[in-house]
Amino acid sequence: MSDEKVWPQQELGKELNNWGRWGADDEVGTLNFVTPEKRVQAAQLVRTGKAFDLGMPFDSEGPFKGAGFRNNPIHVMTLLPSDTAASPDGMISADDMVITGLQSATQWDGLAHVGYGGKFYNDVPAAAVNNFTGAARNSFPKVVDRLISRGVLLDIPAVKGVDRLDDSYQITEADVLAAEERQGVRVESGDIVCLRTGSYKWFLEGDRERFLGNAPGPCIDMCRWLHDREVAALAIDNSTGESWPSPIENAIIPFHQVVIRDMGLTLGEMFNFEDLVVDCEQDGVWEFMLCATGLKVTGAVGSPLTPIALK
Amino acid sequence: MSDEKVWPQQELGKELNNWGRWGADDEVGTLNFVTPEKRVQAAQLVRTGKAFDLGMPFDSEGPFKGAGFRNNPIHVMTLLPSDTAASPDGMISADDMVITGLQSATQWDGLAHVGYGGKFYNDVPAAAVNNFTGAARNSFPKVVDRLISRGVLLDIPAVKGVDRLDDSYQITEADVLAAEERQGVRVESGDIVCLRTGSYKWFLEGDRERFLGNAPGPCIDMCRWLHDREVAALAIDNSTGESWPSPIENAIIPFHQVVIRDMGLTLGEMFNFEDLVVDCEQDGVWEFMLCATGLKVTGAVGSPLTPIALK
Amino acid sequence: MSDEKVWPQQELGKELNNWGRWGADDEVGTLNFVTPEKRVQAAQLVRTGKAFDLGMPFDSEGPFKGAGFRNNPIHVMTLLPSDTAASPDGMISADDMVITGLQSATQWDGLAHVGYGGKFYNDVPAAAVNNFTGAARNSFPKVVDRLISRGVLLDIPAVKGVDRLDDSYQITEADVLAAEERQGVRVESGDIVCLRTGSYKWFLEGDRERFLGNAPGPCIDMCRWLHDREVAALAIDNSTGESWPSPIENAIIPFHQVVIRDMGLTLGEMFNFEDLVVDCEQDGVWEFMLCATGLKVTGAVGSPLTPIALK
Amino acid sequence: MSDEKVWPQQELGKELNNWGRWGADDEVGTLNFVTPEKRVQAAQLVRTGKAFDLGMPFDSEGPFKGAGFRNNPIHVMTLLPSDTAASPDGMISADDMVITGLQSATQWDGLAHVGYGGKFYNDVPAAAVNNFTGAARNSFPKVVDRLISRGVLLDIPAVKGVDRLDDSYQITEADVLAAEERQGVRVESGDIVCLRTGSYKWFLEGDRERFLGNAPGPCIDMCRWLHDREVAALAIDNSTGESWPSPIENAIIPFHQVVIRDMGLTLGEMFNFEDLVVDCEQDGVWEFMLCATGLKVTGAVGSPLTPIALK
Repeated sequence: MSDEKVWPQQELGKELNNWGRWGADDEVGTLNFVTPEKRVQAAQLVRTGKAFDLGMPFDSEGPFKGAGFRNNPIHVMTLLPSDTAASPDGMISADDMVITGLQSATQWDGLAHVGYGGKFYNDVPAAAVNNFTGAARNSFPKVVDRLISRGVLLDIPAVKGVDRLDDSYQITEADVLAAEERQGVRVESGDIVCLRTGSYKWFLEGDRERFLGNAPGPCIDMCRWLHDREVAALAIDNSTGESWPSPIENAIIPFHQVVIRDMGLTLGEMFNFEDLVVDCEQDGVWEFMLCATGLKVTGAVGSPLTPIALK
Repeated sequence: MSDEKVWPQQELGKELNNWGRWGADDEVGTLNFVTPEKRVQAAQLVRTGKAFDLGMPFDSEGPFKGAGFRNNPIHVMTLLPSDTAASPDGMISADDMVITGLQSATQWDGLAHVGYGGKFYNDVPAAAVNNFTGAARNSFPKVVDRLISRGVLLDIPAVKGVDRLDDSYQITEADVLAAEERQGVRVESGDIVCLRTGSYKWFLEGDRERFLGNAPGPCIDMCRWLHDREVAALAIDNSTGESWPSPIENAIIPFHQVVIRDMGLTLGEMFNFEDLVVDCEQDGVWEFMLCATGLKVTGAVGSPLTPIALK
Repeated sequence: MSDEKVWPQQELGKELNNWGRWGADDEVGTLNFVTPEKRVQAAQLVRTGKAFDLGMPFDSEGPFKGAGFRNNPIHVMTLLPSDTAASPDGMISADDMVITGLQSATQWDGLAHVGYGGKFYNDVPAAAVNNFTGAARNSFPKVVDRLISRGVLLDIPAVKGVDRLDDSYQITEADVLAAEERQGVRVESGDIVCLRTGSYKWFLEGDRERFLGNAPGPCIDMCRWLHDREVAALAIDNSTGESWPSPIENAIIPFHQVVIRDMGLTLGEMFNFEDLVVDCEQDGVWEFMLCATGLKVTGAVGSPLTPIALK
Repeated sequence: MSDEKVWPQQELGKELNNWGRWGADDEVGTLNFVTPEKRVQAAQLVRTGKAFDLGMPFDSEGPFKGAGFRNNPIHVMTLLPSDTAASPDGMISADDMVITGLQSATQWDGLAHVGYGGKFYNDVPAAAVNNFTGAARNSFPKVVDRLISRGVLLDIPAVKGVDRLDDSYQITEADVLAAEERQGVRVESGDIVCLRTGSYKWFLEGDRERFLGNAPGPCIDMCRWLHDREVAALAIDNSTGESWPSPIENAIIPFHQVVIRDMGLTLGEMFNFEDLVVDCEQDGVWEFMLCATGLKVTGAVGSPLTPIALK
């Protein structure tokens, strides 16, 4: 467990801590900011009816190589037309199954995904996540009806004048403010922030190793802004959810620690903003209704999904 | 394959056939009725911001018994806090996977799920669905951005003055018209019809066998109405998607044949309308925005999902 | 972890402890008793060439119900004749996969399966078994070439004059000695003892619940005999590997603790001795060559197998 | 299906056909040559008690890349010491599962694996292998007690004076006879022939692509010899079971067709003879007892295994 060293992310976590803010039993965290009023506001952003699919396909061409504890999805047919070819009325049918990591493509990291000091969000002990129950508390299904809200895309590469951020670039609060300024948009309470690093281009170009490697992304400098703006959830287009490797020595995923464990923020990874960003740049509208519900796998710590942005 | 006998569902299918209606290469079918304008209309139905989760949990307590080609979902942890307990900063983490039939709980049947005469929707040959490619055509991912539209709940048991329909009851066009009349609502082009039979109560009450058994549901008598109204998709709360057993001897799933193969209609099963129906009865509003996207498993013939209705 | 209470199985374990006996790095335990000479002796027991299959089928009709962390095997076809029907020379082919607990039917429990006091056999720390490596030490593949030896069947119900032992019956050293006496056979160093309780009859009769339930089996009283005789491995026909529930309050599987963790003995469960016992009773020969190798799943804590006895 | 062209392998198949030889319902094929007497003979070959493990590990480092219908095995822990850390007596436990193609590492191809002309071995129709039953006939479990017999290793590279055969080299009857001559051994009725190509060295050297690629192996020229000698089963050390690509244009796996479908011969692939061959060369003894049973997965067309050779 943690030694006596003071870790900067954990110091910041103390400051931004939301434990108890929505009750001692809360398992929803910052998605509590998605109120009924927020849903109404989000729906009113659907003005032209354009839909953007922000999801990665789930298949064997995914980013993982097959070794390690995350695997690309395996799709297997369990019924085929040949099985039903003898039906009297000529009926044919097909069924299928999938074997997939819940974190193998576009995904939400739930509030039981990362913690420290023996605790997950809202004082949930490590032992609440185990092989018998999965996540007995803070499981993903608890937030499943909260993941439809106003989405705001922030295009950080555009601020820097590049098509994608450098490897391992650390996105700062200043970058985010500059993006808001450039785009003429402001992130508000209950929004789902869609943070574009451009890293997804590596995946689209077929360079899975670079997509999985030294990703640009937020580090703990962005946490206070997320907290102050009452962001409901954060979705990123890289594979790691934060800048990689971590700038804090011996702390592998410090940003995850603060946002998931201390703030109770659901974190999305491997979102594809490439089509959406082109449209937003063209029409100057960077807000939209984001429908980003996942699967209710009981006890799950995360969820695969196909996010859809409606403008 | 089919013998020379004339099958009533296939006769009807010829009449209601949509092949070529949206082009020879179309893989979307009646979800083409979900236009940009339709999405705008749907979003405008979000008035109070109430959200209803229409999904079944994905877990080992699902409706299936473990034998046969459909299995209840298996959730397995692939990373636990104990694996990361030695991290210098005390970080703990958890990951997980799922092994699940794509038809094991709340699901969409895609256009490669059922056909006859060696063909699926839009003249796709049976061999297009195989173990090498999954569904090479008509796969579920093709419709993934179309499954957000206006939803209309039709409560058939209420028409009959019961809390759930009798086993194997066949819902007719007259029943549906009576429900519209009673509820003061009208199904329009591009809607996703949510058809309540009450069968889901068996599942909620723990009687999995009866839920899987002789289900009430539509039979081919309802198809012409679905066609004339230009319904985009149909979601049902039973386990079989139509009345079971089929009233047509030797035709196991005649309704599937007509709607999926001839009309190109995506068919939902095991939706939970029990909370939603209470609310609709109370406020008299039977229309809502239905966000019912699934997973983009490449080549899949169906998809698990968590549908969310917003009012 | 363990409190200060003195647990009888752990006291006995200290006495019978084999740690270091075959070196500080040993991962084989009592299977070290299977020497080259022992293999030669075992082979010489093949006199008539009769073969007995002692395995349970791996399928969805297995003993488990689908809930919980053990599941019945799921067999899925991944290639079918219809996939290859278009081959120029008419070739057809089929392939398949299995999703199975390594403990879902006839199995060996390896030396990383059970421990106590934070340790597995030969001072291996609990953390050596984790999601990253599986069992980094004491994994099943380490013993894979040792599981062919002389087998001796001991029929305990016959000693008692019954066809199967009572539920939860605890087999004692006296029972085992009586069986040896009745059968005119003696267990020697390096043997694999096949201990028949008759419990497997419940499975054969279709009563899976009773087979999984209050099983007759050995308790810690038998450990000293196993130790003194230098038994290489013990295979049982019940589902739990010892009497169930445990006679020691708050100790769930005390026999496992002593034999696996302290003695380093590989323990088999769900072996089917029903055909073999009939033959042994008829010809009076209770010894045979037992070929009981499993699968080398890297990092596995156990293994499925099909044991074959040759007489 | 097959057109009118005369295929040389199918012509040969007619000549060597064993259908009906062991009865119209036989599902065992040439493994019928493993008689009780044969088992006794095999056991008598255990003279020094040396054991050789001929299996490939089952893990994510296997030969496959993760795409396609064969996948490397996935091993997942389902119970860990941390799950049981709170047990009163300090008991810790671990369990695990595997998701694996039955053809993903060392394997037997059963008699439902390959056919042609709409038929598998012994006139079994293609439709007998389907998603409902797996292989309803000719499934692997039918032969599970026959796979212990006399093994004979034939080292073809040694005949050629190389350490491994050239890519795509086709082993002929002359090669096999030369190996027998060089080694001073003769293959007899009921033997399991272990045919070394040296291809396994690629796998051991980490070149998975070459191991999977243009393999040396037998082609149909060897079939008559296998038939005349009454070989019970053939195990090879390459990944494809025959020379690759096939020398017969448009016939992908002609050798499989003849031996599996016409002769009813169970065919092994990815056996590791590298340690065994060194020993045989040293002591001049090329025969041994081969214990090569697999798993009884109901309906399986093949089986993973760990073959053990005893000398």
